[in-house]
Amino acid sequence: MSRQTISHEDGAIYEFTPDLEPIATVDSGAELTIETRDSLDGAVQSEDDIIESVPEEVNAATGPIAVEAAEPGDVLRVEIEAVRVTEDRGRVITIDGFGLLDGYDEIEAPRSRITPVEDDSIAFDDLEVPIDPVVGTIGVAPADESYTTLVPHDHGGNLDTTDVTGGNTIYFPVFQEGAMLAMGDSKAAMADGEMCGTGAEIATAIDVTVEVIDDPNVALERPLLETDDAWKTVASADTLEQACKLANLDAIELLAAEHGIDETDAYAFSSLVADLEISQVVDPLVTVRNAVPREYLADPF
Amino acid sequence: MSRQTISHEDGAIYEFTPDLEPIATVDSGAELTIETRDSLDGAVQSEDDIIESVPEEVNAATGPIAVEAAEPGDVLRVEIEAVRVTEDRGRVITIDGFGLLDGYDEIEAPRSRITPVEDDSIAFDDLEVPIDPVVGTIGVAPADESYTTLVPHDHGGNLDTTDVTGGNTIYFPVFQEGAMLAMGDSKAAMADGEMCGTGAEIATAIDVTVEVIDDPNVALERPLLETDDAWKTVASADTLEQACKLANLDAIELLAAEHGIDETDAYAFSSLVADLEISQVVDPLVTVRNAVPREYLADPF
Repeated sequence: MSRQTISHEDGAIYEFTPDLEPIATVDSGAELTIETRDSLDGAVQSEDDIIESVPEEVNAATGPIAVEAAEPGDVLRVEIEAVRVTEDRGRVITIDGFGLLDGYDEIEAPRSRITPVEDDSIAFDDLEVPIDPVVGTIGVAPADESYTTLVPHDHGGNLDTTDVTGGNTIYFPVFQEGAMLAMGDSKAAMADGEMCGTGAEIATAIDVTVEVIDDPNVALERPLLETDDAWKTVASADTLEQACKLANLDAIELLAAEHGIDETDAYAFSSLVADLEISQVVDPLVTVRNAVPREYLADPF
Repeated sequence: MSRQTISHEDGAIYEFTPDLEPIATVDSGAELTIETRDSLDGAVQSEDDIIESVPEEVNAATGPIAVEAAEPGDVLRVEIEAVRVTEDRGRVITIDGFGLLDGYDEIEAPRSRITPVEDDSIAFDDLEVPIDPVVGTIGVAPADESYTTLVPHDHGGNLDTTDVTGGNTIYFPVFQEGAMLAMGDSKAAMADGEMCGTGAEIATAIDVTVEVIDDPNVALERPLLETDDAWKTVASADTLEQACKLANLDAIELLAAEHGIDETDAYAFSSLVADLEISQVVDPLVTVRNAVPREYLADPF
């Protein structure tokens, strides 16, 4: 089966809603290349292109893609084989009213900086940063509420999580028939935290394999990440403290089920081995991961 | 010069105050072995030893140690050569009123779990956890306020930061003559976050070399960590969001000075390369790091 390409020119959304209409329908097991434009829809091509305030529409997510036979209660497995940058520059910007240090005297907003692509790096002035792409926004149709692509929640969305990259796999709960996968908002590089509000925003082509897991052994409430080293629960909430609680509760549930221990022992054990990690601190809800090393957790599905 | 041993039996504090009296005075450059008892002063030797509420005194910190010629405005460099566990068991506990998930129905508190030392690991039931020690509480005499050893702040204190371990170096601002270094509260293993409120609390012997940096090139306001890969600012505050802001501001200042760029560019650049990391989410103030890869930051002193 050849790899099917689905482009943002075929369709892209700025809101994850419960009733999305697909631009494509694929089988479970399909290999896809998803083409995405940058989060600002190309508005910043030079350092003179300034974004005065957060645009009403950002983070265009290519899709939605219906996956045949995906039903509520299933899990959608999205293996990310590779993320390639497909334009010659990224951009990192400050916007008034956005970012960790919004309102601090030292910080000027708006400002746009262009990060040209040079072989395997981007340049920030004379500093080189290795290209290490991140898919910022990825998710499925939510259960009841609608969320713009600026917001992360249980359906995924604007998770801005560095682990969403080539070589890793992300799992979503399926809330609606066909799941309705969409993704975009890639970065050529981004730090955990995404402090100024962006990474190096850039167009990409993302190779994925999508697969429906029916009758999963665990009921997934939120996204879950699989990396070479760890299984990582992912939770978004109003505060980092609240997101930490949700991410830790999800990790505890997985550990308790795997080892036949109660939640209190799983909690104590997590405090020895399961690192809490920051995804992003700038979106309307903030996102945290709880990483359980693979030696303590087999495939939970 | 032979390595001098200073034990918790010589003296230990439960509060970092501006006017500490030293139990030992050493030269800049001194090589020391600091012996510490566990954070609960040996109160939990079996799983029947239950801690009903947070004790008034926890985290005994061996010291204070005056370092000759350390003056306010200097920086104290503490290179941690090794941390060795010196007893046959650790303990990880829940306490009512403490911990990330305090008050959740699923979590039973108090509970005590013993983690026996077996060669290079500790055991949690039949799960093995490699020993990877952490010095939980380490700091100097603060400027004006006093802080119990349960609290982290600009003087250090209960930072509960996994990078405070053998092979790394931690730098403190000197607020008082002699600096007045003290440390304790070690763990045989701890996850970033320390979610249940403890790691595997254990007695240790800590090999350090202390050195006064006078006339430092940067004025340090808070602790700074040096690891193999990164320089990490360390900040404690009421919320993780506020701690993130302080840690990022400190990192921005270092990046701006190093590269001759303004704070806004340093902020944007940090958003590409400088990961925000969680130290702990359970103490009266919470602690965050901002890790700047060493390729972007030379020794700032």
